[in-house]
Amino acid sequence: MSADGNFRRIGIVGVGLIGGSLAFAVRRVFPDAAVIGIDGDDVTLVARQLGALTVGSRDLSALAEADLVVLAAPVRQNIAVLSQLGGILRGPALITDVGSTKRATLEASRCLPPNLTFIGGHPLAGSARGGLEASRADLFERRPWLLTPDAATPAAAQARLVAFVRAVGATPVVIDPAFHDHVLAYTSHLPQLAASALMHVVGESVGEPGLRLSGSGLADTTRVAASPAPIWSDICGTNADEVLPALDRLIGTLQTLREQLARDESIAPLFESAQRWRARVK
Amino acid sequence: MSADGNFRRIGIVGVGLIGGSLAFAVRRVFPDAAVIGIDGDDVTLVARQLGALTVGSRDLSALAEADLVVLAAPVRQNIAVLSQLGGILRGPALITDVGSTKRATLEASRCLPPNLTFIGGHPLAGSARGGLEASRADLFERRPWLLTPDAATPAAAQARLVAFVRAVGATPVVIDPAFHDHVLAYTSHLPQLAASALMHVVGESVGEPGLRLSGSGLADTTRVAASPAPIWSDICGTNADEVLPALDRLIGTLQTLREQLARDESIAPLFESAQRWRARVK
Repeated sequence: MSADGNFRRIGIVGVGLIGGSLAFAVRRVFPDAAVIGIDGDDVTLVARQLGALTVGSRDLSALAEADLVVLAAPVRQNIAVLSQLGGILRGPALITDVGSTKRATLEASRCLPPNLTFIGGHPLAGSARGGLEASRADLFERRPWLLTPDAATPAAAQARLVAFVRAVGATPVVIDPAFHDHVLAYTSHLPQLAASALMHVVGESVGEPGLRLSGSGLADTTRVAASPAPIWSDICGTNADEVLPALDRLIGTLQTLREQLARDESIAPLFESAQRWRARVK
Repeated sequence: MSADGNFRRIGIVGVGLIGGSLAFAVRRVFPDAAVIGIDGDDVTLVARQLGALTVGSRDLSALAEADLVVLAAPVRQNIAVLSQLGGILRGPALITDVGSTKRATLEASRCLPPNLTFIGGHPLAGSARGGLEASRADLFERRPWLLTPDAATPAAAQARLVAFVRAVGATPVVIDPAFHDHVLAYTSHLPQLAASALMHVVGESVGEPGLRLSGSGLADTTRVAASPAPIWSDICGTNADEVLPALDRLIGTLQTLREQLARDESIAPLFESAQRWRARVK
């Protein structure tokens, strides 16, 4: 650990939208730090050419001297990497992730040796377009960055991570990992499932000629359906116990609407409830 | 009818987002035409002060001398007005509407006397925010304006309406009324139902503190849930035979996702299908 508390060698596993944007932000804020990106050769070559990375490698062993590792691959890949880091990092080092579910990765972190400290994280920043090419240094500016320490987390490590998150422009918000997974099942995972199911049904039902007869409503409602499938398989798969009841509630509400329409009853009360809640979404 | 084929006295019933925007557009393109708005006193007063209307009234009898009447209220109100216009318009006059379903209003138009010609219309323009205050003269610029004549429609009347739609900046697209209602059930009405059901479920499940833990995904996916409830009650109610099978397909797809998640099977194929279709949405 450096005298000023800043990290000197920052590893980023997965140089997509979030990992790439974080690399750009770190290079801007901490120009003296080494930024080691782990991804395919083609990705890390481009990221080095763009100045996002100082080192690029396919090989986790490039992280041996890192004092901070950020796991920014799909959740189940993060978990697989986590199980290998104990044998790679010379440590002491802090490990965090940027995955959209928090409990499964926290569980996997229990096997880390004592010189490595894990604290889960989740920046609420993103875009329907993924990949390094959509990355930008200001992606996290003024966005919430959720941190999910637990009772065992050392206060000093948490304070360093909070300072790091602030340095890249985000607003740290500390919450409980289980509460995170419960709330995000509704505010993120269910909207994604609804948008993807809707886009699939609309496309299969009316095809490309039908899609031409659409306005901004369909475009807005299905925007996140452009997101990469592997990311969302892992998110929903590692939060199924929360996502399933959320899905059941949505299916139940759609069935209620269906019954009301079939009986020519008013659907206005549900639409009015939705309108009231929508006014509270930023 | 004027020598140049342009309308001289244009009535607009319902001065909300679409009616108000049309009034502004007409005033800009045809500054010599009278624009008669029918709505509540408070709305027409503001619309006259803003220069959108030359005449404002609560009373349909103000339309007596109109040569074009545009019905821009919710669909079932348009149908109720249509049944009264035969006794009010001295005619000959053209009547059109801007409703999101076409068959029910076309059926209602069969009772019009022979001096009145009805052709359905539907501009694919709008915004989640409704009302006169969201109106703008350029709302229709380069947007499709669907026209749904049938076999009985006189060619000359259709040509005049096509010219009018073009004059206010839109791109006229002539399609069959039943095909319109089938396709729009998927590309517009189902997204609205999905967004409103989703917003209701998310709000009721996590409340305002939970909504703070959301990003652009929830905001995009639920944007149209801010739309006024009465408009959508009428749209879904007058297209129930098309909306019900669309809802059933969405419910079925969500149930499939539910089963896959419950069995820890891959949901990636459906997400990949959605991603492919989303790439074809403008």
